Amino acid sequence: MIALFTDFGFDGPYVGQVKAVLARDAPGMTVIDLQHDAPAHEPRASAYLLAALLPELPEGVVVLAVVDPGVGTDRRGAIVRVDGRWLVGPDNGLLNVLLARAGHAEWWDVVWTPERLSSTFHGRDLFAPVAARIALGESPPGRLVPASERLRPGWPDDLMEVMYIDRFGNAMTGVSARSINDTARFRCEKTEFTHARTFGAVAEGQPFWYANSIGLVELAMNRRHAAAEHGLRVGSPIERLRT
Amino acid sequence: MIALFTDFGFDGPYVGQVKAVLARDAPGMTVIDLQHDAPAHEPRASAYLLAALLPELPEGVVVLAVVDPGVGTDRRGAIVRVDGRWLVGPDNGLLNVLLARAGHAEWWDVVWTPERLSSTFHGRDLFAPVAARIALGESPPGRLVPASERLRPGWPDDLMEVMYIDRFGNAMTGVSARSINDTARFRCEKTEFTHARTFGAVAEGQPFWYANSIGLVELAMNRRHAAAEHGLRVGSPIERLRT
Amino acid sequence: MIALFTDFGFDGPYVGQVKAVLARDAPGMTVIDLQHDAPAHEPRASAYLLAALLPELPEGVVVLAVVDPGVGTDRRGAIVRVDGRWLVGPDNGLLNVLLARAGHAEWWDVVWTPERLSSTFHGRDLFAPVAARIALGESPPGRLVPASERLRPGWPDDLMEVMYIDRFGNAMTGVSARSINDTARFRCEKTEFTHARTFGAVAEGQPFWYANSIGLVELAMNRRHAAAEHGLRVGSPIERLRT
Repeated sequence: MIALFTDFGFDGPYVGQVKAVLARDAPGMTVIDLQHDAPAHEPRASAYLLAALLPELPEGVVVLAVVDPGVGTDRRGAIVRVDGRWLVGPDNGLLNVLLARAGHAEWWDVVWTPERLSSTFHGRDLFAPVAARIALGESPPGRLVPASERLRPGWPDDLMEVMYIDRFGNAMTGVSARSINDTARFRCEKTEFTHARTFGAVAEGQPFWYANSIGLVELAMNRRHAAAEHGLRVGSPIERLRT
Repeated sequence: MIALFTDFGFDGPYVGQVKAVLARDAPGMTVIDLQHDAPAHEPRASAYLLAALLPELPEGVVVLAVVDPGVGTDRRGAIVRVDGRWLVGPDNGLLNVLLARAGHAEWWDVVWTPERLSSTFHGRDLFAPVAARIALGESPPGRLVPASERLRPGWPDDLMEVMYIDRFGNAMTGVSARSINDTARFRCEKTEFTHARTFGAVAEGQPFWYANSIGLVELAMNRRHAAAEHGLRVGSPIERLRT
Repeated sequence: MIALFTDFGFDGPYVGQVKAVLARDAPGMTVIDLQHDAPAHEPRASAYLLAALLPELPEGVVVLAVVDPGVGTDRRGAIVRVDGRWLVGPDNGLLNVLLARAGHAEWWDVVWTPERLSSTFHGRDLFAPVAARIALGESPPGRLVPASERLRPGWPDDLMEVMYIDRFGNAMTGVSARSINDTARFRCEKTEFTHARTFGAVAEGQPFWYANSIGLVELAMNRRHAAAEHGLRVGSPIERLRT
């Protein structure tokens, strides 16, 4: 299975062209859209989101991950294998969080060059053919380097920011909820959020945080648009309050 | 074939995670997106839309239907078989209209619990694995109960409201067009709509209603955005005028 | 493989119903969404976009192309074979640019009528079943006519307009970049655009044009929304400046 994680958006002819390449190079392969509205032009925020989503995918998956503002410059391409899952994409930080969290990781710099390589669409021309080959079980068309050499040091474990707002107005943060107690409170854009387990448990109009379905702190309201009502934006800092 | 009907939106990582589960549990199965912008948080309006769409799907389909504001509370899960088609989703009214219209129906309360069950994403954790098993021909992991016991009484045949507005500004109502004569007129948000057979038959700027492709009364204008020009919103009441 | 090119949008129940028909009539066939936000109601602008995208699709593909404001009137349906690729859709100009550019083309007027034909959704009722049959290798259910008889004369080689704006605010024009020199300059909505090879090569805030990944002149800014900042809209005329 190949899973797509990009900032292309569903609209436009971009995802479709990637899929045409995958259908040509790996006919019959299952291809799913994991997400196409990753934080646009933001490999760092996208990296935290991708790392949280990765455990939801079955082992053996090949993730074609493209958030690539530096396309056409000299940034490298990467093939990474972490805990039985493959990733293919630009070496611009997008793969850094999952690499830092991996139990075991292998890293290849992409060395293959396609016959045609546009300056602006390596997702289609470079990364999709590479992902197809890996999904077919071929060996990575790259040069194996120690993963530790590619790891960018100094990134925090959590991203203390809103990194995604969904259509309901819920604001997903980069903060892992796994070690956080139900008594914790957060503040974001001057609003305070106390804990609830799920939407139906909260009165309408009450802001709350909950451990979302991929293990992150998410700021929300029941049946209301928390982001619009409280001015939450992608990039808004979130602060944990002392209890 | 599994068809998805949800209010998740295409954006975000939700549909992708559901598809990852389906690909894991039912590899190679055809999965199609029937609709992902069902009326958000509105099982009742969504129920009328789903019932109108169901006949468009081939027999044997398994519809994974999730509009689920009560996720994580004690609302039951349901597996329903109507006229050769399967549905899996929450028992919150979403399946009530198709049940009321069914020639023959069977109902199972879901009794299976997955190893991991998040509080907010039963579409991924509960309903997707159940849908996969049914699509594979396994027996429903539920307890058969008389469908009549689960039928919510007192719902009208037609929903006299706008229940969906598409990107062109056409407003789909919950009113069946099947027994309605071409001389009928409707009023919605103070505008009167007379009948036309199709867009090209109407002068630009003229509001009209037509029997849409799933047999419902739809309010529209030719090459203009009827909803924006006449203040039609999801939930706007529609009234049939005496002729 | 069947590729869908429409102005339906991803939202709503339209694409899903088309896919249900394809899954019924051509089970197991790979179906990809090439693009669903082609210029709405604009077969002419859509024709230039489709012609630019077609070479990105592998030979043997069947493109179901539906931008069809005249649905339900007496416009014909068409099946076209150009350079090893098939297209199925309305004969309203949508297929005219690729026809004009084709090395070799065959044209069939659709003569088949389905059992049920709605007045407003020929994409589902007529063109999808025809596309499925062609994808399965059946002979076109149409009447072969000389392609030259269906070619609409007088269309320019290039469309000197913006024909698509993507989520990043980049404005794709109908102007082929293949024969254009890097010294060329364009003007659109009073802003002048000079050439750059890719985004990362341009200072933030500097408007530029580049040869995009499907060979068209595209107007853009690095990490900024060129369309919003410079008033570019679908249909905005573009002018090549003398150098």
